[in-house]
Amino acid sequence: MAKKQSKTKTLPIHILNGPNLNLLGSREPAIYGKVTLKDVEKACAARAKTYGFPIVFKQTNKEGELVEFIQAARHKASAVIINAAAYTHTSVAVLDTLKVLEIPVMEVHLSNPARREDFRHKSYVAMGATGTITGLGLNSYLLAIDAIAGIIKGKTK
Amino acid sequence: MAKKQSKTKTLPIHILNGPNLNLLGSREPAIYGKVTLKDVEKACAARAKTYGFPIVFKQTNKEGELVEFIQAARHKASAVIINAAAYTHTSVAVLDTLKVLEIPVMEVHLSNPARREDFRHKSYVAMGATGTITGLGLNSYLLAIDAIAGIIKGKTK
Amino acid sequence: MAKKQSKTKTLPIHILNGPNLNLLGSREPAIYGKVTLKDVEKACAARAKTYGFPIVFKQTNKEGELVEFIQAARHKASAVIINAAAYTHTSVAVLDTLKVLEIPVMEVHLSNPARREDFRHKSYVAMGATGTITGLGLNSYLLAIDAIAGIIKGKTK
Amino acid sequence: MAKKQSKTKTLPIHILNGPNLNLLGSREPAIYGKVTLKDVEKACAARAKTYGFPIVFKQTNKEGELVEFIQAARHKASAVIINAAAYTHTSVAVLDTLKVLEIPVMEVHLSNPARREDFRHKSYVAMGATGTITGLGLNSYLLAIDAIAGIIKGKTK
Amino acid sequence: MAKKQSKTKTLPIHILNGPNLNLLGSREPAIYGKVTLKDVEKACAARAKTYGFPIVFKQTNKEGELVEFIQAARHKASAVIINAAAYTHTSVAVLDTLKVLEIPVMEVHLSNPARREDFRHKSYVAMGATGTITGLGLNSYLLAIDAIAGIIKGKTK
Amino acid sequence: MAKKQSKTKTLPIHILNGPNLNLLGSREPAIYGKVTLKDVEKACAARAKTYGFPIVFKQTNKEGELVEFIQAARHKASAVIINAAAYTHTSVAVLDTLKVLEIPVMEVHLSNPARREDFRHKSYVAMGATGTITGLGLNSYLLAIDAIAGIIKGKTK
Amino acid sequence: MAKKQSKTKTLPIHILNGPNLNLLGSREPAIYGKVTLKDVEKACAARAKTYGFPIVFKQTNKEGELVEFIQAARHKASAVIINAAAYTHTSVAVLDTLKVLEIPVMEVHLSNPARREDFRHKSYVAMGATGTITGLGLNSYLLAIDAIAGIIKGKTK
Amino acid sequence: MAKKQSKTKTLPIHILNGPNLNLLGSREPAIYGKVTLKDVEKACAARAKTYGFPIVFKQTNKEGELVEFIQAARHKASAVIINAAAYTHTSVAVLDTLKVLEIPVMEVHLSNPARREDFRHKSYVAMGATGTITGLGLNSYLLAIDAIAGIIKGKTK
Amino acid sequence: MAKKQSKTKTLPIHILNGPNLNLLGSREPAIYGKVTLKDVEKACAARAKTYGFPIVFKQTNKEGELVEFIQAARHKASAVIINAAAYTHTSVAVLDTLKVLEIPVMEVHLSNPARREDFRHKSYVAMGATGTITGLGLNSYLLAIDAIAGIIKGKTK
Amino acid sequence: MAKKQSKTKTLPIHILNGPNLNLLGSREPAIYGKVTLKDVEKACAARAKTYGFPIVFKQTNKEGELVEFIQAARHKASAVIINAAAYTHTSVAVLDTLKVLEIPVMEVHLSNPARREDFRHKSYVAMGATGTITGLGLNSYLLAIDAIAGIIKGKTK
Amino acid sequence: MAKKQSKTKTLPIHILNGPNLNLLGSREPAIYGKVTLKDVEKACAARAKTYGFPIVFKQTNKEGELVEFIQAARHKASAVIINAAAYTHTSVAVLDTLKVLEIPVMEVHLSNPARREDFRHKSYVAMGATGTITGLGLNSYLLAIDAIAGIIKGKTK
Amino acid sequence: MAKKQSKTKTLPIHILNGPNLNLLGSREPAIYGKVTLKDVEKACAARAKTYGFPIVFKQTNKEGELVEFIQAARHKASAVIINAAAYTHTSVAVLDTLKVLEIPVMEVHLSNPARREDFRHKSYVAMGATGTITGLGLNSYLLAIDAIAGIIKGKTK
Repeated sequence: MAKKQSKTKTLPIHILNGPNLNLLGSREPAIYGKVTLKDVEKACAARAKTYGFPIVFKQTNKEGELVEFIQAARHKASAVIINAAAYTHTSVAVLDTLKVLEIPVMEVHLSNPARREDFRHKSYVAMGATGTITGLGLNSYLLAIDAIAGIIKGKTK
Repeated sequence: MAKKQSKTKTLPIHILNGPNLNLLGSREPAIYGKVTLKDVEKACAARAKTYGFPIVFKQTNKEGELVEFIQAARHKASAVIINAAAYTHTSVAVLDTLKVLEIPVMEVHLSNPARREDFRHKSYVAMGATGTITGLGLNSYLLAIDAIAGIIKGKTK
Repeated sequence: MAKKQSKTKTLPIHILNGPNLNLLGSREPAIYGKVTLKDVEKACAARAKTYGFPIVFKQTNKEGELVEFIQAARHKASAVIINAAAYTHTSVAVLDTLKVLEIPVMEVHLSNPARREDFRHKSYVAMGATGTITGLGLNSYLLAIDAIAGIIKGKTK
Repeated sequence: MAKKQSKTKTLPIHILNGPNLNLLGSREPAIYGKVTLKDVEKACAARAKTYGFPIVFKQTNKEGELVEFIQAARHKASAVIINAAAYTHTSVAVLDTLKVLEIPVMEVHLSNPARREDFRHKSYVAMGATGTITGLGLNSYLLAIDAIAGIIKGKTK
Repeated sequence: MAKKQSKTKTLPIHILNGPNLNLLGSREPAIYGKVTLKDVEKACAARAKTYGFPIVFKQTNKEGELVEFIQAARHKASAVIINAAAYTHTSVAVLDTLKVLEIPVMEVHLSNPARREDFRHKSYVAMGATGTITGLGLNSYLLAIDAIAGIIKGKTK
Repeated sequence: MAKKQSKTKTLPIHILNGPNLNLLGSREPAIYGKVTLKDVEKACAARAKTYGFPIVFKQTNKEGELVEFIQAARHKASAVIINAAAYTHTSVAVLDTLKVLEIPVMEVHLSNPARREDFRHKSYVAMGATGTITGLGLNSYLLAIDAIAGIIKGKTK
Repeated sequence: MAKKQSKTKTLPIHILNGPNLNLLGSREPAIYGKVTLKDVEKACAARAKTYGFPIVFKQTNKEGELVEFIQAARHKASAVIINAAAYTHTSVAVLDTLKVLEIPVMEVHLSNPARREDFRHKSYVAMGATGTITGLGLNSYLLAIDAIAGIIKGKTK
Repeated sequence: MAKKQSKTKTLPIHILNGPNLNLLGSREPAIYGKVTLKDVEKACAARAKTYGFPIVFKQTNKEGELVEFIQAARHKASAVIINAAAYTHTSVAVLDTLKVLEIPVMEVHLSNPARREDFRHKSYVAMGATGTITGLGLNSYLLAIDAIAGIIKGKTK
Repeated sequence: MAKKQSKTKTLPIHILNGPNLNLLGSREPAIYGKVTLKDVEKACAARAKTYGFPIVFKQTNKEGELVEFIQAARHKASAVIINAAAYTHTSVAVLDTLKVLEIPVMEVHLSNPARREDFRHKSYVAMGATGTITGLGLNSYLLAIDAIAGIIKGKTK
Repeated sequence: MAKKQSKTKTLPIHILNGPNLNLLGSREPAIYGKVTLKDVEKACAARAKTYGFPIVFKQTNKEGELVEFIQAARHKASAVIINAAAYTHTSVAVLDTLKVLEIPVMEVHLSNPARREDFRHKSYVAMGATGTITGLGLNSYLLAIDAIAGIIKGKTK
Repeated sequence: MAKKQSKTKTLPIHILNGPNLNLLGSREPAIYGKVTLKDVEKACAARAKTYGFPIVFKQTNKEGELVEFIQAARHKASAVIINAAAYTHTSVAVLDTLKVLEIPVMEVHLSNPARREDFRHKSYVAMGATGTITGLGLNSYLLAIDAIAGIIKGKTK
Repeated sequence: MAKKQSKTKTLPIHILNGPNLNLLGSREPAIYGKVTLKDVEKACAARAKTYGFPIVFKQTNKEGELVEFIQAARHKASAVIINAAAYTHTSVAVLDTLKVLEIPVMEVHLSNPARREDFRHKSYVAMGATGTITGLGLNSYLLAIDAIAGIIKGKTK
């Protein structure tokens, strides 16, 4: 179930990306496609704008920095979209920080982790999120924006 | 990654619901809300229509019938949206049938299973799906329709 | 602890039996005795009558049908007695449906599963029941009726 | 299945209670109710009397003493009712002693352990008992007396 | 070791097929070949006829129906051949029903489950069968008929 | 699925037997029957002859020798039938050698390991075999010869 | 988080010691030092006195007696300090009794169990305690007294 | 390897027996034979005498008392022979006390626990003993006395 | 047992805090209270001063920085107090660095991890620490300072 | 419990030694002492002679040869003493062969495996033996001879 | 098997070192020796020079920085040598980044992790590496350079 | 860390190869390449000669023979290089024999077992080796010779 709605509706959506996502487009294109992280950012900005949300779009390869990105969203964001990549499966720290938030949190993945190695089947992020969207490439992010708009603005399109 | 796009674009989206979803709206409303399955069906039909898709909307409490609903989608559907409910966690038969399909399959859940008992953390459905959307109530279904439109029609809205 | 008492005291007790219980009396009589399911039904009807309860007595070999039997008890039964047999150990669907009920639910077994194979030591039914009675053959059912009378009518005989 | 019937019908039923049951009524009344162990004893004595059985009612906080209570029942009791409380889950010694008995043994619990922590789901007592009755508060004991009467006297009421 | 030989030699062999086997020939032909279930039935009928056995050939996608197919074989079949497909790995109900039979039971699989995912390595069916034949496609069924003839008629060809 | 067919059709079938099979007939006759390994060899030779195959029949109690028997089959055999007995459950070396072969490999067992101790449920041999036949005594071998004939000669009898 | 503060401030602190602690000083002095349990008691009495608390200091080698020591603290103690020694890792009974208490409970250990065998890493006592102090020898007890004074008297020294 | 030899050779051997061993001779004679614990004591006394050792022979059903029996052996015994029965598998307290001893400790069992349930395969006693003797009935004790004589007196007979 | 005492007594105590502790006071106040990390620092400085120790007080959200904080303590600190928060349960790197230190290390936690999720029951920090203090809020830190004073200065107050 | 006594009392005791025991005396003397395997043989021969038994004493480093040594004991030995060394923990083949024997089988070890690595705590040999003697060096063998004499000749010295 | 050879042969070898390796020489010299990381760098530079490779030598205590060091090697290095120290066992992020590389990757360790705690037996780095060299101190690095030269230049010295 | 250096420097290096390595070059060349074991031997001889070492090069498919090859190295070899192939993962006997050696032992593998099935991730050989080199084909052996020269002769080239 969704977390409490933020009162200030014009706060941006924070879209946070974990390790190796900076390589998107050039890394294993057969799996991840040719879309770059810059493309993801642009598409997210455009989609969020249709709901009146600005976005803050960040990437880091560092677990601790991801923790701080989440902390930074506390009173500054309407919602968080997070693709924690490898830290999804190992970071209790990320989970703990997500639990601090009182705004909607959507976990996204470009691919479908359930079809990969066993150690990718556990998600600490999901335990701290409102919901999860996987397997849709760039569209996982865009639907997460739609989901957030639905939660916050009470409309689905 | 998404499965092969169906050639016949006017085939309906099959939306399949598993055990106890017929009780939606009257069962544990604190968790599942007051939306009924009929409401879900109407909202899905409306959303699918915006993409030019008819829908076939079914519910069953029986694992074997769910298997047959999936089989029925083989040459008759553009895509499948499935909320297998309890069978998500126990049905190899459902997984095997999903693997037969060559059209997009979206797994949806109203709530976020990662926040519930351990035995709900395993999903056989996810292993046979294109992707998963959880935790958004009725909106999990609607976004799954959007996801399918994105995969099949190459547009996201 | 017992679930909330039903207000309508004259609703029947639903007594639901899972797979292979239709073979009772002819199946492995050394273990299960010569009592048939018909005998169980008669004895239950007689015992329930002493408390003023009619009974509805059903058997099915199908998990999904068992789910529907439980659903059917929702607003139509004073209480449920369930011997889910093999589905006891594998059915999350049965557990989910039992959790929907707001009336007393007694799990019964003819034999004592704790003395059998390891995979029979786990009971999803127990997780959704008020209590459990095992190991007493036909009498497990009769005592469950007594237990229900105790909960609903506030008397123990 | 029930153990061999004792030949001497007038031997008492031994009702044995494990650790912390002496605190019944004052301990966590929200869970365990206000019934005291003295109340349980009185109710048991009354119920057993209707079948012509005297009772011996004991409580101990010590595993070894519980072992000796069970040993004492060997040639002196018609049957044993045992609520081993915490030792249910940890005592191989209690199991070994129960296996020595050749009279009916009913395991009882006031609450339903299947709804509590995982380490309470294992019962060594059940492995040495004729059957189990859980979740019915004081009534778990009374139904166990009925169960024993059914086994020994061949009647269910 | 083989179960007791049926006295009535002219009873048919019941050949029971589980979920998704109705799709044989059109499903993943690279793995399962182009043989259809109808082809399997015909080949089985022909082979059984050489031993003087009629066959009863059934398929179902439903666990409970498979249970009932097995029950139906109780006094009506010389032997059972069962390919439980996905239910092989999850159905205690099927195991329990197989244990009721006192006639030879052969488990068959078209492919070799030992070369597939870990959750396909456990077989509840094998625990209730005389023996198992895997990995030979259609021929797994035909050899199972030969095996049954060997058990019942005391000859191997 | 079957391995590639050997081109030289007149090469013998190698039938390889693991530890303690030399004691067949005198060891636990209640379980394994009175058939000796010599009897198995004769029956196999006769059956193989009906398909035009000579046989090479060997037994060893040594894991390493079993590895060498399999190696010896590489370019000298049409197919391998292997009853690895105890090494079935513990020998990665046997698995590795079977993987070297490019001819059909049938795993056979006289009894049904699924009905024995847990450590007999894992088969390294099955992971390197075309298929498995269990539970039929001597007939497990004969049907394996039939299976091989079916794979190599494209006929089933 | 700390349990509710006892109203009667002059009740003693009960300091309870489990098996083999009576041998302190003479047992493995390299690990446990030369301090005897009498020394511990004296030091505790002195420290508690600085806060105005008398102490009750007990040792037992028996699980059941430890249960009773804890029960005895119920309405007679301001707080409990418990070093359950070996029973730390095995006693559900001790856990259940600690849960009955509504006063502060400090678990103490002379050594650091995290540096010892794996079976010493689980603590049932910790699950029923306000907090834990380990690894400081005699000082573990004294700091526990300080901790209790902090909770009850609202001062830390 | 054996522990340090006691300097005072005339100290007795302490022979300690755990729960239910007081029932020896009357409990499950098919398994444990007709020898009583009194018989064991006499035979031990006679055997020990041949080496010049008196014995102290004790039995208890209580874990804590067994701990104290072992403690009592510290400076008063030449060696300890212990049959901890059920506590073998569950008692860290017994292990801890055995580790305090600096004299030879022999674990004995009448039967062979490796042939019984899985939970009897773990021995905490063995982890604190010089060695173990199992499966020989009364003779397990007598050979343990011989073993101790061998360690202490440097002769084997 | 405590590590070797530092020779230079006037070196500060390094007090190191892990992820999300910067949010103390504003994060889940029901659990963690209203005390801020600044408050903790002040209270620690005051308490340390009573023993003549200055303090160095740091916080980081980054595992690697925590590693470097510990390294920095090597020749510059009298002792380390560490609350590694989420990294407690996942960081082998922190453990390895703690093992490098030859000064006292106290692990502290504000809450009692034994009462939280299972994945919080494992502590890599404890494996590299002198001892642990949990569950006392701010006071966990203050008592850790007392503990260190006890180790280094040989006095307990 | 002991296996059936051999009728021919003058058959030798076969004493079988597994891998690396040929190095005894020169291998890790701190653990295994300076006794050589030749010394063990001589001492065994002498001890067995006192009971009128010749011995056959063998050593092998090969699992399969150990299997054959056991087979060779079938009709040629009064009893078997086996120190399977490393194969104790890994050889199902050795277990299967021991089960073939109908004479007493004593498992012996020079050291106490319960004090070594976890993978040495499992013994397949124990599952096929009458009993086990560990931890007594050479004397483990001699007491095993005494044990066998006790079983076969009905006397203990 | 080795990854694809880089086309640009004059690119440097990147040698990446994880947490606590900056302390080499002063940390636990009994285990790790007196060689410093500077010494390792010098020796590596000299060895690489013999093959015509420059080196880039880095150390970090931070998982995310290690990820970035690996990313930096993508188009700038001929090969990577990585000693991830503690992150070897916990970092999926490091594994994911190594998988991005298309140049040879050698995992090195100074000591032999197989001889240390169980949690050091799992290596995520090995799953992303061409090969591994352990246990040789400084020489592990030098041989890794030789290995890389062998892969890239097709010569082994 | 490396084992003690052999005093006699002119003793050969024993290079020991396990099951199926005799097939090298003809077995799965896509994985293992076209190099034969004879090629490996020649290359090893040449490399060892550069350090002044003769070699002894052996292969066996038998676990026990591999044990004896290792034993033979005891006083006759400067060092051992071992590729135990499948026995790497299953042989405690090989581990025990390696532990007897007091000379350097290098484990080598042609491929990288960390990228293969889970059961190949455990290495008993590594637990008895100085170090390990994997994934470099023939070069794994040559670098192991270099490693040994480095340990024994104190030079790295």
